[in-house]
Amino acid sequence: MGKEKVKIAFVGLGGRGYGILKLLLSMEDIEVLGVSDLYEDRAEAGRKLVLETKGNNPVCTTDYRKLLEIKEVEAVITPSAWTSHGDICIDSMLTGKYVATEVGGATSVQQCWELVRTSERTGIPCMMLENCCYGREEMTILNMVKKGLFGELVHAEGGYRHDLRDEVALGRENRHYRQKNYLNRNGDVYPTHELGPIAKYMDLNRGNRMLSLTSTASKSVGINEWIRKNKSTDYDLYGSKFALGDVVTTVIKCAHGETIVLFHDTSLPRPYSRGNLLQGTNGIWNEDKAAVSIEGLTPAKNSWDHHSWQSLDEFYAEYEHPLWKQYREAGVKAGHGGMDYLVLRAFINAVRSRTDTPIDVYDTASWMAITTLSEDSVAMGSAPVAIPDFTNGKWIDRRPPVRGRYCLEEVCEDSMDNEW
Amino acid sequence: MGKEKVKIAFVGLGGRGYGILKLLLSMEDIEVLGVSDLYEDRAEAGRKLVLETKGNNPVCTTDYRKLLEIKEVEAVITPSAWTSHGDICIDSMLTGKYVATEVGGATSVQQCWELVRTSERTGIPCMMLENCCYGREEMTILNMVKKGLFGELVHAEGGYRHDLRDEVALGRENRHYRQKNYLNRNGDVYPTHELGPIAKYMDLNRGNRMLSLTSTASKSVGINEWIRKNKSTDYDLYGSKFALGDVVTTVIKCAHGETIVLFHDTSLPRPYSRGNLLQGTNGIWNEDKAAVSIEGLTPAKNSWDHHSWQSLDEFYAEYEHPLWKQYREAGVKAGHGGMDYLVLRAFINAVRSRTDTPIDVYDTASWMAITTLSEDSVAMGSAPVAIPDFTNGKWIDRRPPVRGRYCLEEVCEDSMDNEW
Repeated sequence: MGKEKVKIAFVGLGGRGYGILKLLLSMEDIEVLGVSDLYEDRAEAGRKLVLETKGNNPVCTTDYRKLLEIKEVEAVITPSAWTSHGDICIDSMLTGKYVATEVGGATSVQQCWELVRTSERTGIPCMMLENCCYGREEMTILNMVKKGLFGELVHAEGGYRHDLRDEVALGRENRHYRQKNYLNRNGDVYPTHELGPIAKYMDLNRGNRMLSLTSTASKSVGINEWIRKNKSTDYDLYGSKFALGDVVTTVIKCAHGETIVLFHDTSLPRPYSRGNLLQGTNGIWNEDKAAVSIEGLTPAKNSWDHHSWQSLDEFYAEYEHPLWKQYREAGVKAGHGGMDYLVLRAFINAVRSRTDTPIDVYDTASWMAITTLSEDSVAMGSAPVAIPDFTNGKWIDRRPPVRGRYCLEEVCEDSMDNEW
Repeated sequence: MGKEKVKIAFVGLGGRGYGILKLLLSMEDIEVLGVSDLYEDRAEAGRKLVLETKGNNPVCTTDYRKLLEIKEVEAVITPSAWTSHGDICIDSMLTGKYVATEVGGATSVQQCWELVRTSERTGIPCMMLENCCYGREEMTILNMVKKGLFGELVHAEGGYRHDLRDEVALGRENRHYRQKNYLNRNGDVYPTHELGPIAKYMDLNRGNRMLSLTSTASKSVGINEWIRKNKSTDYDLYGSKFALGDVVTTVIKCAHGETIVLFHDTSLPRPYSRGNLLQGTNGIWNEDKAAVSIEGLTPAKNSWDHHSWQSLDEFYAEYEHPLWKQYREAGVKAGHGGMDYLVLRAFINAVRSRTDTPIDVYDTASWMAITTLSEDSVAMGSAPVAIPDFTNGKWIDRRPPVRGRYCLEEVCEDSMDNEW
C-alpha cells in the first residue's frame, strides 16, 4: 500500500523479545531503527536479525536511553525484564514516543501513578501488550458478553497456570529475570493474561473499576522439589529459599459488586491453562471445559440438572468476533495462536493514526498495580488493600469504544460496524 | 445377621430429611423410635413412613426434646434447618445420645466451641454427615493422595456450585429454610461439600489445621433476576433484597502453608459442579475435566506442553478406594451416587461399636465455623479472620486413622488393610 513505515526502537532481547522482534520484522510497514539489551550479545543478535531481514543496520546499544535520542523513532516496544518496564515507558513518553510494554506487574503504586501522569501530561499513549485480550476464545466471549448472552456479569476467575519450574530453576543459566523475582517477591507477579480480558468483559476503567483486593500465598515448595529431582547438590540454588508461594490467590472486588479471582500458579506440575470462568445472570463460560451454558440457548441433557455444558465451538459461527473472523480469512499469523500479531498490530495502528491505544495507560497502570498490591496484601497476612482509581474519577463517564478501537487495518475496514 | 437393632430418633423431615429417613429405613439393623419436625404434617408423614416400612409406630412430635426423653434411643440424626443443628446436637449429647447432623454452617464460633466441649465432657461423638467425603471420586483421590501420587499437597479449590434460584425464590412456598438465610446472611453458608473431602486430603485436625481466612462476596442479583423472569410483580418477594452475594469466595490458609479456595455459587444459572481442584508437588486433579495429571505417570500429548490431562477413569482399576470397590461389588445403594448410604453407615457403625465417628466433633465444629467466620470477613470488607483451634493443640499429635475408621461392616472386613 506504499504507506510510510512506522519507525520503532526495540528494547529487551531475551527469548520472548527476540521472538516478538522477528514477528515485527515480518510486517511490511515497520522499520526498526534501534535495538537494545543489557546483554551485549543479545543486543547484537537483534541487530543482526534486523539487518538480515530488513537490510538496515539499526543502532545497537546496552543503554536504551540512547535509542530515545533517535529523533525519527516514533514508538518504543519493550519486552524487557519486569522491573524495568516502568522506567522505560516513562522515559519513552517523556521523549514523545508511543510506548508498548510486554506484560508484567509493577513494584510500586507510585510507579503506576507516574505512568498515568506522564501520559496525561505528554499526551503520549502507553499500552500493555496483553496478547490474551486478542485470543480468539477471549474475543468471542467478549463479543458474547457485549451481545448480552451472559446477562449481567457477576463473577470471573482466571489464572496464569503454567508449569515454569524449569525456567525459574534454570533462570541464572538462561539469564531469565523470573528467577530473581521468584527468589525475592511474594505475590501475583503476572496477573494480566487473565485480568486483561476480564477487564474488557467488565468494562473496568470505563464505567466500572477495581476497588480492593486480598491476596493469599501458599507455601513455596515446588521449585525446590524440582531442583532436588533434576539437579545435584552442588547446584548453586540447591536448597535455596524461593519467596514466591507456589499458588497465589487474589480476590478483587469491583465498584459494581463483581468479584474477580486470580490464580498465579507456575511452580507445580500441571498442564497449561488460563483457567477462565465467567458468570452472569444468564450464563457461564468455563475455559477448562471449553464450554458455555447459556440460559434459553443451551439444552438440558440430564433429568437431574436443568443446565448442561455446550461446546464453545457451537458458538463461533454466530458469535466469533468480527475481527477474528476476518483475521482467520486473511490467514492467521504466528505467535500464541495468532494473538501476538493482533496485539502488535493494534499498537502499530494506533501509532500510525496518532490515536490512543485500545489498552490505554489507565488499563496498563491498574493492571500492573495488582502485582504490587498483591505483594502488600500477602505481606500483611491477606489484609484487604485498596486499589487506586488511576483515572481520578474519569472511569465514571468513560465508556468502552463503540467501534474501531480494536480494528486492525489489514483485516477490517474502518467502516466495519465493530460495535463494542 | 440377627444383630441388635440400633435405635434412632429422627429430627427434621423436609425434603432432604424424608429422603434420608427412607434410606435409613431400608437398613435391616435400624429401628426408628421417634420422629420430629416443627411442622406437624411433616412429622406425621415421617411417622407414617416408619409405620409402613418397619411396622412400629414411632413417637411423633413437633418438639425434638421429647424424643431425647426416650431412654432406648441411642442416636439422633438431624437433617433439620441449618440454624437448629447446634442446639439439637448439644442437647442430644447431653442426654448421652450419639448425634449426626446434616451439613450446614454455624452462626457463631461460640456454638462450635459448645459442640466440642459438650462432646469432650460427655464422651459422646458428634458427626457431620458430609456425604461428599464418601463420594467415589473423592475417595479415590484420597487414596491417591495417601499413596503419594500428588506429592506434597500445596493447594486445593472446591465449591458448592449449584443453581438453587428456584429453591430459594420459592422457599416460602416450600417452607425451605434456605430462603430466610439468603435474605439475611452474607457469607459461605454451605462450605462443607468441598471442604470436607479437602480436610481429609490435607489431614486437617490431624497434623495440620486451618489458620485464617478471607471471604469476599459479589453483588446479589441472580435470584432477583430469576423472580423477575418467573413471577409476577405481586409475588411477595418481588424486588426483595437478598443479603447473600451470588458468589462468595473464601481463601483459607493452613498451618503447613497450604491454601484452600472455596466458592459458594448457587444464585446464577450453571451446571452443577463441586469444582474440585487439588495440587501437589507431583500432580493435579481437576474435577471439571474429570482428569488428573501425575508427573512420571501421565504421558505428554503435546510438543508445547510437557503435561497433559489423563482421565481419572484410567486410575480406578488401581486406585479406587478399597471401600468403594467392595461397595460397588456388593451393589451401590441409592442417594447421590451411593455416598448418602455410606456416610449413614459410617455413623450407624460407630454407634453400634461405641467408637468415635470418622468425621468427629473437631471436624464438625471447624467445618461449621467456616460459615460464621466467612460472614465476619465479608462484614469487615474481606478482612482476614483467625480460625480457632478447636482441638486446643491436640491436632499436633493427632493423626489420620491408620485403618478401620471408614470401614463399613457390610462391605469390608475388619481385617482389611485400610491404610489411611
